[in-house]
Amino acid sequence: MKAEILSVGTEILLGDIINTNAHYLSKELALLGISVYRQTTVGDNEERLLDAIRSALKDCDMIVATGGLGPTTDDITKETAAKALGKDLYIHEPSLARIKGYFRDSARAMTAGNEKQALFPKDAYILENDNGTAPGCIMTNEKGQSIIVLPGPPKEMVPMFENKVKPYLEKYLDSTIISKSLKVIGLGEWDMASRVRDIITDSENPTVAPYAKDFESLLRVTAKAEDETSCRALIDPVVAKIKERIGEYIYGEDDDTIEKVVGELLIRNNLKFACAESVTGGMIASRMLSYEGGMSRVFDEAFVTYSNESKTRYLGVEEGILKRHGAVSEETCHAMAKGLLENTGASVGLVTTGIAGPEGGSPEKPVGLVYIGVNMKGTIKVFRHVFPGDRNRIRSRATVSALGHLRTELAKSLY
Amino acid sequence: MKAEILSVGTEILLGDIINTNAHYLSKELALLGISVYRQTTVGDNEERLLDAIRSALKDCDMIVATGGLGPTTDDITKETAAKALGKDLYIHEPSLARIKGYFRDSARAMTAGNEKQALFPKDAYILENDNGTAPGCIMTNEKGQSIIVLPGPPKEMVPMFENKVKPYLEKYLDSTIISKSLKVIGLGEWDMASRVRDIITDSENPTVAPYAKDFESLLRVTAKAEDETSCRALIDPVVAKIKERIGEYIYGEDDDTIEKVVGELLIRNNLKFACAESVTGGMIASRMLSYEGGMSRVFDEAFVTYSNESKTRYLGVEEGILKRHGAVSEETCHAMAKGLLENTGASVGLVTTGIAGPEGGSPEKPVGLVYIGVNMKGTIKVFRHVFPGDRNRIRSRATVSALGHLRTELAKSLY
Repeated sequence: MKAEILSVGTEILLGDIINTNAHYLSKELALLGISVYRQTTVGDNEERLLDAIRSALKDCDMIVATGGLGPTTDDITKETAAKALGKDLYIHEPSLARIKGYFRDSARAMTAGNEKQALFPKDAYILENDNGTAPGCIMTNEKGQSIIVLPGPPKEMVPMFENKVKPYLEKYLDSTIISKSLKVIGLGEWDMASRVRDIITDSENPTVAPYAKDFESLLRVTAKAEDETSCRALIDPVVAKIKERIGEYIYGEDDDTIEKVVGELLIRNNLKFACAESVTGGMIASRMLSYEGGMSRVFDEAFVTYSNESKTRYLGVEEGILKRHGAVSEETCHAMAKGLLENTGASVGLVTTGIAGPEGGSPEKPVGLVYIGVNMKGTIKVFRHVFPGDRNRIRSRATVSALGHLRTELAKSLY
Repeated sequence: MKAEILSVGTEILLGDIINTNAHYLSKELALLGISVYRQTTVGDNEERLLDAIRSALKDCDMIVATGGLGPTTDDITKETAAKALGKDLYIHEPSLARIKGYFRDSARAMTAGNEKQALFPKDAYILENDNGTAPGCIMTNEKGQSIIVLPGPPKEMVPMFENKVKPYLEKYLDSTIISKSLKVIGLGEWDMASRVRDIITDSENPTVAPYAKDFESLLRVTAKAEDETSCRALIDPVVAKIKERIGEYIYGEDDDTIEKVVGELLIRNNLKFACAESVTGGMIASRMLSYEGGMSRVFDEAFVTYSNESKTRYLGVEEGILKRHGAVSEETCHAMAKGLLENTGASVGLVTTGIAGPEGGSPEKPVGLVYIGVNMKGTIKVFRHVFPGDRNRIRSRATVSALGHLRTELAKSLY
């Protein structure tokens, strides 16, 4: 089943608003197993809108249109969709009554334009609007193609889709789609995909697709079947195969975030955590504390030790080490990790030191060089990386990588 | 002049990412006086992409395409655009050399796919990519229609449009467009706009438009004239009028960021800075250190003092104050700001304490309550806010607000 998402509104073409509706609908339709063939945005112009509808009906089974249901003469989506399907419009009395009630309740004056909002083809399926005056509708032609017409404001459109359109479509499609995402740190998208290339290529149901986002990678496994159990039965063996190959890099699934996974490991095992950041300068602490599941039980304090003196003062790094090896070195990183636990009494420590640039690089120590230290109750490991990108990409990559290493070491030491 | 914006990427049709490129380009093209006829999004599929390009060439003078310039076989935008225009592709040696250089500098292995990124029609106008491997290009057919092909990642696309495409289009359009953005912290978009409503309404050239982004507001003043001097002459008096009204909230212009403005004030005046964060937990330090202009000269150290004990240990906050007033109180905030400078020897200090939620709120101290303390060489001011939103929106708003207060206090004490 193929759909086109049709956004109607000159304000989108002018760049005045961002088209979040197309994003929301794409995601929701994908979850329903309806493949979005194209997204199109046109202005409030009858000729162009008619063109767009006719072109979509050539390629798709369904059009989901948003916007242009308001009371003004500019609002022509419903009228134009009816025209494209050769249908006339009539006042739908229950909708008119609802609109009148809406104005009565809010003590505002109803205009003639609002009456227009109750006009529908006789055979349309009406979608009541619980958050505004404009009802939506679903119109179907003799070939079984449908045009779903929804209001533009997301606060009206989203609940209407969720509560009225989705149940309609699920009944109509008579099938279930389930996805599982495997979340990966430590392998780039390309690297991850090439390790499971044959699984990606050979899988049709479920499908397997790689993505990259915010310096992480993910593999999404999506099955379509008559019910959830059957979907899971298709997904599970493929997930198992993927885990055999790259399991050590998979930190979580679906809505897991690295800070949530690490945070929960710390909290569940009652392990006090501390960090000392040089190159990442607060990013790790900030990311850990973005997890809302009660970090105060394991997180007391953290340091940004940007200068050499602060590394000595708060982490006890010997001046000799800094002098001999430099602030960005395996030795300094090791000493930071050691001093961090000694000085704070935490059980688990994470430290970073590196060169984010743009200045400060050299042939031996290029911009992007980062040392990450993990201290698990006195057992210290130091990891060396050279990250590409500009200053803040390097810092963000270092943050994700550091949390990934911490997760791996925590998992190893706890199981 | 009519343009179509063509976004290419299956990830957009799946709803995995939101199409901010179409929004950015619509706004920028509108400012250049190019009217956007339609926005279309298609997947990485040659047939559909070819259809979309041919359909756009029927209606428009120009296509601005983003996405599909990567190294994989899925990336086919440039190839398909060239096919639609009947052009062959050849290795463009300067681009190949740049790509090779990029990999040499980042010490990573170049793949055969990366070589493909240097393929272009012989008569294409090449757009160098300063932020990634994929160059863009402008291809033109015999009718004078052009296809502008840009990379998908906004970090690469936006600077390429700004620095390479805009000057090209301005030359082509034979007029100059200049914008000046006034950046505001401390007034929401609505509040800002209502204070200058008459200026916004009365201005046609330059136009004045309000925006909100990342918990800041901005006013963009845009003039169109035959040259830069004439544009500036139109812009300057309007900017002066705006500054009379809301000057105290304007922290900078155009590419200024709050961390850059604050960082430069500190560096220029040789003021050592330190911060101690509870509710913002590293966000302020991280943001300050994202400025690449030599923060190491003024930034030695920072603390995340999440627990009560850490506020006492590193900032000398008396246990009695914490007990009597609580960690989230004007008194604790004041004591944190005082102890921070005493313990670090810095000249300028910034501290935060608050309730980000979701737990921990009460009728007297609701979720969103944040105290921000600024200590300028011993003179302490504490600001109280109640920010709306979820945990991380509260933390982000508190960070922007804290840096805004710091900027205001620095500016006051220095001039």
